[in-house]
Amino acid sequence: MKITVLTLFKEMYDGFLNTSIISRVLSKKEHEIKLVDIRDYSHDRHRHVDDTPYGGGAGMLMKVDVVHEAIMNNKDEDTYVLLTSPKAKPLTQDDLKRLSKKEKLMIVCGHYEGIDSRIEKYIDEQVSIGDYILTGGELASMVICDGILRLLDESISSDSLKEESYENGLLEYPQYTRPVEYDGMEVPFVLTNGNHKEIERYNLKMAIKETMKYRPEMLNRELSDQEVLLIKEIEDEL
Amino acid sequence: MKITVLTLFKEMYDGFLNTSIISRVLSKKEHEIKLVDIRDYSHDRHRHVDDTPYGGGAGMLMKVDVVHEAIMNNKDEDTYVLLTSPKAKPLTQDDLKRLSKKEKLMIVCGHYEGIDSRIEKYIDEQVSIGDYILTGGELASMVICDGILRLLDESISSDSLKEESYENGLLEYPQYTRPVEYDGMEVPFVLTNGNHKEIERYNLKMAIKETMKYRPEMLNRELSDQEVLLIKEIEDEL
Repeated sequence: MKITVLTLFKEMYDGFLNTSIISRVLSKKEHEIKLVDIRDYSHDRHRHVDDTPYGGGAGMLMKVDVVHEAIMNNKDEDTYVLLTSPKAKPLTQDDLKRLSKKEKLMIVCGHYEGIDSRIEKYIDEQVSIGDYILTGGELASMVICDGILRLLDESISSDSLKEESYENGLLEYPQYTRPVEYDGMEVPFVLTNGNHKEIERYNLKMAIKETMKYRPEMLNRELSDQEVLLIKEIEDEL
Repeated sequence: MKITVLTLFKEMYDGFLNTSIISRVLSKKEHEIKLVDIRDYSHDRHRHVDDTPYGGGAGMLMKVDVVHEAIMNNKDEDTYVLLTSPKAKPLTQDDLKRLSKKEKLMIVCGHYEGIDSRIEKYIDEQVSIGDYILTGGELASMVICDGILRLLDESISSDSLKEESYENGLLEYPQYTRPVEYDGMEVPFVLTNGNHKEIERYNLKMAIKETMKYRPEMLNRELSDQEVLLIKEIEDEL
């Protein structure tokens, strides 16, 4: 996967690209994130990329010609072009999976002051990471890169059990590590006794319990027989 | 506002803190982001912070004692403690507004391999930036900091008109800047003729049109008389 990010703030990616898990993934050279400074495509020596909006209004807008040239000079025929935008429906894990199947992605980072709306002609899809307002699209683009590279990298997918649990329509069950007793709280006995069948049943029950508590709407779907049984058990214990 | 972030990847914040809009906000010294390395609270000279989960399973878990000590050594009585977690309901702009009213926030970054569940005893609220899976809580914590500092900083809120539009239950209307004609696309004439009453009406109509197209569910609310009128106009034009 090659992801090209178009931004006005390349330096903002330093920490993201050079530390932590993503840098380890990128160091394997199977995947690449390329940063492009939109300002390199400005038309004047002051490197302006924005201008005042027609019809008035606060703030400045990024110019369609500058951003369009930045896109065209950095994409191939088969590059799928995303624009970060507060307009789109919030991103989901299914979107990340779908996008992770593309060979070449481009993410154009919107700016808090906006982009000339005509840019949409050159965009395949608008993406939003959630229903809130950020100063720019840079963090959104990092979220998208992180979520996709995580799916593509096998060393990270070793935590796939948990992901499956999430994807099976339940939240993760609570987990515990040493010490067995801390500040008056003990690890549930069943997890320490080595009976794997019991542990599996207990963890499923706790996953359902967490989901009932935090995200009950996730259970508005067809339930398995075992899920129905465990929900009844949980309700009886209340 | 003082935000303290507990993380295993302090370096990951370099770009976020030192460039772009957030660095400008922080340079005014009214607000502060403090980074704490959770590893400083490990109990052994190898600086371990995680251990294997009880009951088996892939991956490692962050230890409750280490994270608890990191929290207690860096919070005041009145610090509101958040934990990034895929479990919570997705963050909204209303959550950001509510959190921006706190004087002191702490964000504990969860890790992709998980935290001992007993940590919840020391947390005021779990937050998720969306229904997708990331390698860790660091990007989520930056999103929260960015969204909150943006609300607190007046120089950024100069784009408040747009925000209000979003908050009035509509998406932003499309905006345009020079050139007036680009690649066969023209700026709508009404925006160039200087009649502010017409411009205002046109922009409201376009905001409704964008909302109908991208996020129709946002219109499932009580509508103003003018909104009802403009929706009818848009439908008649289809």
